[in-house]
Amino acid sequence: MTLEVPLSAGPGTPTRTPATPAADAPRTPSTGTSDFVAAVQDRLSEFFATRRPIVEPLGPVFVDAADALEMFVLRGGKRTRPAFAWTGWLGAGGDPDGADADAVLAACSALELVQACALIHDDIIDSSRTRRRFPTVHVDFEQRHRERGLPGDSAHFGASVAILIGDLALAWADDLVHAAGLDSAALARFAAVWAMMRTEVLGGQLLDINGEAVGDESVEAALRINRYKTAAYTVERPLHLGAAIADADPALIAAYRTFGTDIGIAFQLRDDLLGVFGDPEVTGKPSGDDLREGKRTVLLAEALRRADATDPSAAHLLRTSIGTDLGAEDVTRLRAVLTELGAVDDVEQRIADLTDRGLAAIDSSSATPAAKEQLRGMALAATRRTA
Amino acid sequence: MTLEVPLSAGPGTPTRTPATPAADAPRTPSTGTSDFVAAVQDRLSEFFATRRPIVEPLGPVFVDAADALEMFVLRGGKRTRPAFAWTGWLGAGGDPDGADADAVLAACSALELVQACALIHDDIIDSSRTRRRFPTVHVDFEQRHRERGLPGDSAHFGASVAILIGDLALAWADDLVHAAGLDSAALARFAAVWAMMRTEVLGGQLLDINGEAVGDESVEAALRINRYKTAAYTVERPLHLGAAIADADPALIAAYRTFGTDIGIAFQLRDDLLGVFGDPEVTGKPSGDDLREGKRTVLLAEALRRADATDPSAAHLLRTSIGTDLGAEDVTRLRAVLTELGAVDDVEQRIADLTDRGLAAIDSSSATPAAKEQLRGMALAATRRTA
Repeated sequence: MTLEVPLSAGPGTPTRTPATPAADAPRTPSTGTSDFVAAVQDRLSEFFATRRPIVEPLGPVFVDAADALEMFVLRGGKRTRPAFAWTGWLGAGGDPDGADADAVLAACSALELVQACALIHDDIIDSSRTRRRFPTVHVDFEQRHRERGLPGDSAHFGASVAILIGDLALAWADDLVHAAGLDSAALARFAAVWAMMRTEVLGGQLLDINGEAVGDESVEAALRINRYKTAAYTVERPLHLGAAIADADPALIAAYRTFGTDIGIAFQLRDDLLGVFGDPEVTGKPSGDDLREGKRTVLLAEALRRADATDPSAAHLLRTSIGTDLGAEDVTRLRAVLTELGAVDDVEQRIADLTDRGLAAIDSSSATPAAKEQLRGMALAATRRTA
Repeated sequence: MTLEVPLSAGPGTPTRTPATPAADAPRTPSTGTSDFVAAVQDRLSEFFATRRPIVEPLGPVFVDAADALEMFVLRGGKRTRPAFAWTGWLGAGGDPDGADADAVLAACSALELVQACALIHDDIIDSSRTRRRFPTVHVDFEQRHRERGLPGDSAHFGASVAILIGDLALAWADDLVHAAGLDSAALARFAAVWAMMRTEVLGGQLLDINGEAVGDESVEAALRINRYKTAAYTVERPLHLGAAIADADPALIAAYRTFGTDIGIAFQLRDDLLGVFGDPEVTGKPSGDDLREGKRTVLLAEALRRADATDPSAAHLLRTSIGTDLGAEDVTRLRAVLTELGAVDDVEQRIADLTDRGLAAIDSSSATPAAKEQLRGMALAATRRTA
């Protein structure tokens, strides 16, 4: 089973910013439906079909909810996490034409169901109304409640249904892992990394909402959220999962983890810059949208740190304008402030350093030449992109 | 490892009514801390200790959240679901002094983490403020937010944290299963039943909130919610899980499932009766509390069905008074109406029939004599209790 993994499957799936760290960034277009994306789609479709005999006896209400989850998962994205996991497995010697390739692909595909839970619950937490141009799950069921003219609080009904659908996605992620068909030793190795990954991403989400609540402006806080909510979950642990299935040696796992952490963080930093400086024609988002939304990025944290040390009036301007309804001139002025403070150069330097370090780790590893080339391409696509 | 499973661990853990199907009913006191309850507690404590090295690197905010989950789980209940799973395993020939007993106990204990997710998320959905005399998790974090004087919506913050802590419980349930140490064949058999159980309970919860939204008054709807939200989740599938670990033959599994469904439903029906007729001195709940809360029980559905057929004024009285702020005289009057309509006798008959059928299934099964005696005791404790 030789599958072409799309280069731009880079870490395109984490959120553009720490505020919704697990989101698929629509500004990173897929290179198109590759073999790999289609194969993941097939595995997910097959899995959903196996749930029907469990769901249907409970009746049409539950069938509707399961259908909503299926549609949510199947219309989504670039399958970034499965792509890293699959590449991690190949790079550690996995044979795409071997007898276990189907099982590996199924286990990698289960990452998309964890992601569905993360997105569905995150959208409730962030009160997001749309995702990928569709109503979010809680808004969908809120609207169904209202359209049926039912009594009671439509918003609370929608959130309640979406909590349960997210839980279903998380439970089904495990069910797909168990049903994938990995041999028992591979399953045990996979499960240990899977456990860390899920705990870390939930921790990252908790840090994020706590940081927002307490107004933590530090660079350290933004970097920690970035690490656990984006990098570990999107690149590091997926590669590690693939390596675990292949029973890779510790040195290769260490190299993957360094690459994954560094490239994952660099991806998010690039995203932070695009959220302020990106061309709306290319990103598809209004110019400076992150400034308007007040997202607590490393870029902003670094700017505040510098302004507090050297330029109190700039600090005051940032604190009083970020997160407000900014006009085009305000955005232009804030961009200039961020640049003049040196925060943009700082973040660019971080991206360059992280990318160098991540690539060096892979280059000197025992990963297969094809996987090295693939990972290099994914890394550059993720950290040098303009959308 | 000979562990005394408390008789009253019967299905004491499901909710008293379909409205919070997964709750521990405080009106069913434990017979006291038995060997078994203490052993489950130990396994859970050990598991939480293994999570610390994953949680601590993320910092004190995540440690606090994990601690809140640990306290929630460790202060809870009679360990009803683990008790049925363990008894199911013993009854199918499991050896409590065998080499695999520790692993089985750990896997059975994981049911308490699924239950923690169900309760934490259910409390958000039901807007419940307290559980077991403590603030619910979302209220706890709402209060922490408020006490720290943080800006923003304290209630939304609390619900957001509780969504993530519930997710953590669900993920950790699986992690405990994987880490339990079951042999690979037993794990695969366990996982297939585990998948059905979690899907069914989430489906039951969805049916419940949908039924409440649409005002479904039918007996069939109440019974279906009862079946999936209480019976399958609390008795049937736990017994099935134990049987699956022991690789029981299909006939014994079928007997367990009949027993579990029937006794589980009968338990909930007894609970419905106690919610209306229970002695507040014994139940610890205000008299007629279910009437005041408007819980959509089989008892009420049966009464409405009969009233619609024979007594329109009784039907009108029920529909206009149930779910309102009833005084003692109102409660007395409604009790009389429910009794006169024959709904109480109907529910008592259902309990008797279900109990007979469930016990007959076990009696004629190949379960060990000790397990038969234990399950008979648990069934009678669950269906004949007065509190």
